[in-house]
Amino acid sequence: MPDSTVPTTPSSEENIKVTTGALPGSHKIYVRSETMSDVRVPMREIHLHPTANEVPVRVYDTSGPYTDPDAKIDINAGLFRMRTDWVKARGDVEEYEGRDVKLEDNGGAIGKHLAAEFPMKHTPLRGKPGANVTQMHYARKGIVTPEMEFVAIRENLGRKIKSEALKRDGDPMGANIPDYVTGEFVRDEIASGRAILPNNINHPETEPMIIGRNFLVKINANIGNSALGSSIAEEVDKMVWATRWGGDTVMDLSTGRNIHNTREWLMRNSPVAIGTVPIYQALEKVNGVAEDLTWEIYRDTLIEQAEQGVDYFTIHAGVRLAYIHLTAKRVTGIVSRGGSIMAKWCLAHHKESFLYTHFEDICEIMKQYDVAFSLGDGLRPGSISDANDEAQFAELETLGELTTIAWKHDVQVMVEGPGHVAMHKIKENMDKQLEICHEAPFYTLGPLTTDIAPGYDHITSAIGAAQIGWYGTAMLCYVTPKEHLGLPDRDDVKVGVITYKLAAHAADLAKGHPASQIRDDAVSRARFEFRWEDQFNLSLDPETARQYHDQTLPKEAHKVAHFCSMCGPKFCSMKISHEVREFAAKKEEAETGMKQMSAEFKKLGSEIYLPKDGETVEAAK
Amino acid sequence: MPDSTVPTTPSSEENIKVTTGALPGSHKIYVRSETMSDVRVPMREIHLHPTANEVPVRVYDTSGPYTDPDAKIDINAGLFRMRTDWVKARGDVEEYEGRDVKLEDNGGAIGKHLAAEFPMKHTPLRGKPGANVTQMHYARKGIVTPEMEFVAIRENLGRKIKSEALKRDGDPMGANIPDYVTGEFVRDEIASGRAILPNNINHPETEPMIIGRNFLVKINANIGNSALGSSIAEEVDKMVWATRWGGDTVMDLSTGRNIHNTREWLMRNSPVAIGTVPIYQALEKVNGVAEDLTWEIYRDTLIEQAEQGVDYFTIHAGVRLAYIHLTAKRVTGIVSRGGSIMAKWCLAHHKESFLYTHFEDICEIMKQYDVAFSLGDGLRPGSISDANDEAQFAELETLGELTTIAWKHDVQVMVEGPGHVAMHKIKENMDKQLEICHEAPFYTLGPLTTDIAPGYDHITSAIGAAQIGWYGTAMLCYVTPKEHLGLPDRDDVKVGVITYKLAAHAADLAKGHPASQIRDDAVSRARFEFRWEDQFNLSLDPETARQYHDQTLPKEAHKVAHFCSMCGPKFCSMKISHEVREFAAKKEEAETGMKQMSAEFKKLGSEIYLPKDGETVEAAK
Repeated sequence: MPDSTVPTTPSSEENIKVTTGALPGSHKIYVRSETMSDVRVPMREIHLHPTANEVPVRVYDTSGPYTDPDAKIDINAGLFRMRTDWVKARGDVEEYEGRDVKLEDNGGAIGKHLAAEFPMKHTPLRGKPGANVTQMHYARKGIVTPEMEFVAIRENLGRKIKSEALKRDGDPMGANIPDYVTGEFVRDEIASGRAILPNNINHPETEPMIIGRNFLVKINANIGNSALGSSIAEEVDKMVWATRWGGDTVMDLSTGRNIHNTREWLMRNSPVAIGTVPIYQALEKVNGVAEDLTWEIYRDTLIEQAEQGVDYFTIHAGVRLAYIHLTAKRVTGIVSRGGSIMAKWCLAHHKESFLYTHFEDICEIMKQYDVAFSLGDGLRPGSISDANDEAQFAELETLGELTTIAWKHDVQVMVEGPGHVAMHKIKENMDKQLEICHEAPFYTLGPLTTDIAPGYDHITSAIGAAQIGWYGTAMLCYVTPKEHLGLPDRDDVKVGVITYKLAAHAADLAKGHPASQIRDDAVSRARFEFRWEDQFNLSLDPETARQYHDQTLPKEAHKVAHFCSMCGPKFCSMKISHEVREFAAKKEEAETGMKQMSAEFKKLGSEIYLPKDGETVEAAK
Repeated sequence: MPDSTVPTTPSSEENIKVTTGALPGSHKIYVRSETMSDVRVPMREIHLHPTANEVPVRVYDTSGPYTDPDAKIDINAGLFRMRTDWVKARGDVEEYEGRDVKLEDNGGAIGKHLAAEFPMKHTPLRGKPGANVTQMHYARKGIVTPEMEFVAIRENLGRKIKSEALKRDGDPMGANIPDYVTGEFVRDEIASGRAILPNNINHPETEPMIIGRNFLVKINANIGNSALGSSIAEEVDKMVWATRWGGDTVMDLSTGRNIHNTREWLMRNSPVAIGTVPIYQALEKVNGVAEDLTWEIYRDTLIEQAEQGVDYFTIHAGVRLAYIHLTAKRVTGIVSRGGSIMAKWCLAHHKESFLYTHFEDICEIMKQYDVAFSLGDGLRPGSISDANDEAQFAELETLGELTTIAWKHDVQVMVEGPGHVAMHKIKENMDKQLEICHEAPFYTLGPLTTDIAPGYDHITSAIGAAQIGWYGTAMLCYVTPKEHLGLPDRDDVKVGVITYKLAAHAADLAKGHPASQIRDDAVSRARFEFRWEDQFNLSLDPETARQYHDQTLPKEAHKVAHFCSMCGPKFCSMKISHEVREFAAKKEEAETGMKQMSAEFKKLGSEIYLPKDGETVEAAK
């Protein structure tokens, strides 16, 4: 049953270019569910050199059809809407004539200032009157949905292939990580609120993914234009680029004009869940005057975005009037954009935030589309000095209260966290969040562990992110090198994603996810056996690894060399280590023949070394 | 009393170029000791914009005279030998005719292959017969040396200037960090072995620096050529470059030919302590055949390097014959170059390591020159899989035993640590080292927290380094993006140093060093007040911060703009936060006049915003 589509005006965005094709040494596989025949889960297999004598390494694949050479990619048509059948089969949704696009949805842009509309228009779906279409609602009714089955298979990765996968190591810090993930386990986690599966019924292009402490740590990549730069083409490219390298979700933080049209292009082409901060668009609709915001404008924006398929909304409903004065003595005040907008509104009207007072109304909308809450931490610290202060923790109490309300409506919730926090104060954030928000998934920005390194805040924050991921944060929002300085470009997006993938993986290892060390071990064996190509292909960023190697040793012959330019042929510890190992193996065989072996080894040793530098080994200059 | 110098052959290395001049917004100051008139300690002061109304921020300065515009820099003459008078004034050293440079010291290089000798030859010093010239020896006799006084002032930084400096925060994890550092405190730490002050009497060019758990966390930068690349000019440049950005020590890990001459150029021009791994040069002397190494050749190499002024030696004396078989089942065997060389020697001869059997002989040499031990962890794990295994901890026991022996000779000791360790196993490394090595300073390489990100191992390791620094590691050995892939170049050195400076600083914050947050707060205030120039200048890498900002907003006018391209003018949370704050201030003044204010704010607000995008704000494309 295909879903309804209506062609609209032809696109003038035909020049949108995105990166497609498999990653080096990799190909896409699909693992079929044993119980649900239409559930097939994409994974990436990395092939190793025959001398490795190892099965391919399966890795989690967020890149969608873009890396499948058999998939037809047409940015003007959008991705295949895989989940439409699943959604409709549940019988609780209806097509309806959605809201018309209004002039203010695109910031009043007209004529040449108006970016192209996406060429196809899909009729929106919503829950039938009285219906609740959230994954949490189904989970609580005991239903394992295809989406849940999908994520169960996705989380397991190669656990069934490798016997060593079940070797458990790590300190889970209270997490309850199963040996194998089943659909039923997923259902139970969602039902309890410990995990969310953000999947708007109007975003059927997604490959389902789960966020929760008992699953692999996920990462989010922020994209979006600002009034000062970028275009739809650039943002679609960044979105595909971010998922290519491992972004589990993408947040479209666009401000300025053309927000609606930009988002539509992103939604229709995104294989991952998309999050937004609806207050940004609402503020554009009132020409940037925070005091002019109203519940009605905000509500209309929520419906607009829900119809487009946004999977989770950041809503800063915890910034209450009474907390604002707590930020007065801070070094950096309120650093959340949404938080500062709402604080301004509250003070201007001397009223409680309409996000707080209308929270149940918001829940009513969320459950009609299955949009998940990402409860924004509008009062997060923006500097080391402000971490873990009264304002931050006062807001957290409210976020806990709102979590309970959302759950009453069976609406999925995650909770956002800081920010800037020195290492000794990180764990307190996690512990308090778990307690106050009843184990709803935590979603943190870093945290940055020092303020003194602008230009390197992907690193100051990866230090904090890896730790809080280990302690239990379910999703890490990336920080790019441009943080605090400017709008990230394509290169920054990649560095941010890779940095956060490695931080999330470091957390998975520390938590002791059963199969998480498989890839590390494969890289290390490749390294030890001088399978350079395998080492590159197994790494998070094969292109960069290869390029760094080739700067000094570019020739193909060097890809099998038993050394690199760091130490040169005579000082390669791994090479010497092989010699030691061969020797020790012989020793074990013939413990008594040691003296003969000593002589033999000496003879052998003088042949093992390659000629001195420059004679046969040619370095690139 | 100037020290003796003899001009040698003229240099053919006149083209060595190093980077000099002050960092942006900075100038060098010298803080004089109140008790020792010839002790003047360099620091860097960063000046802030007058609107900040703040005193300059003092930061630790490792860059030596190169950033002092009043210093005369002549690479062919070397740096001023500041400490010569201090060393000679103690009356326990003698000049003597040093060892002649032998052909094998430069790997047999002759003619055009022989790199230029350094143009000046200094007569070496050593302790008079029976004298022990180590800082530890003086410390244990109750003497506060000028070197100790120097580091006391250096560690204090701005603590006496800022009243907030003494606000204590952090979790010191058992460290005993004083409010103020005194010469007597330094003496006591060195006497107990908890800290080392690596300062060979033949390296009087250094500005003294201390390594210990109760002091600021230090970082080391590795440089050095391999058989496949680089030159003396490149290495001297890298050394100066590494100290410019914050390297507290530099290790010269050169292999291949010309090791002796390369090192002489480095020593004479280095303002920081230099470390080496003498087995590398010894191995070159026996043409790379590990089995041909002898105690005599090694001993001669130690003396050669001690006469040149090397401040600490990495010595892998813990790789004992009996431990080698413990590495047989490892994924990556032995990954320390020195460790693998010694393992090979031990197995070939089926004998105990001569480094172990001659350890007291080594101590006798060290105390004549005050060379500190860096007890190498030859069996450190080279992969996540091998972390914290029997081989690693067996060696650690031996390093503890050797620490005690060195201390018996009043020889300074630090202990090297891993390597590759998942986060949940890091603390065990620190705890065991503290216990087994009796609180001798720990000096770790990272550790890397995952193996899957070659090309980004400065980051995988910074995550581990920040944590182990917090737990008590005294010095962090940097890892560059080229780790596992190739020889780092100048750019890699800078990225490695900045990454480790931020990790070390994150650790200082977490430990609660009294003055450590001053710089973070200054950056954050500058950020909040849109003092962009101050934010750049206060950062660890002002050039990169400025460049990232200017990619989108290059004009001078943008340096005072109340926004950047990340969010644009309307969405800058900091700008809105100022408006909120002004409003809240008024509210406090007149709690009752809220309604009037609400109206007023609304009026004000509509004027505060800048025109819409494109109209007055021009973005660079």
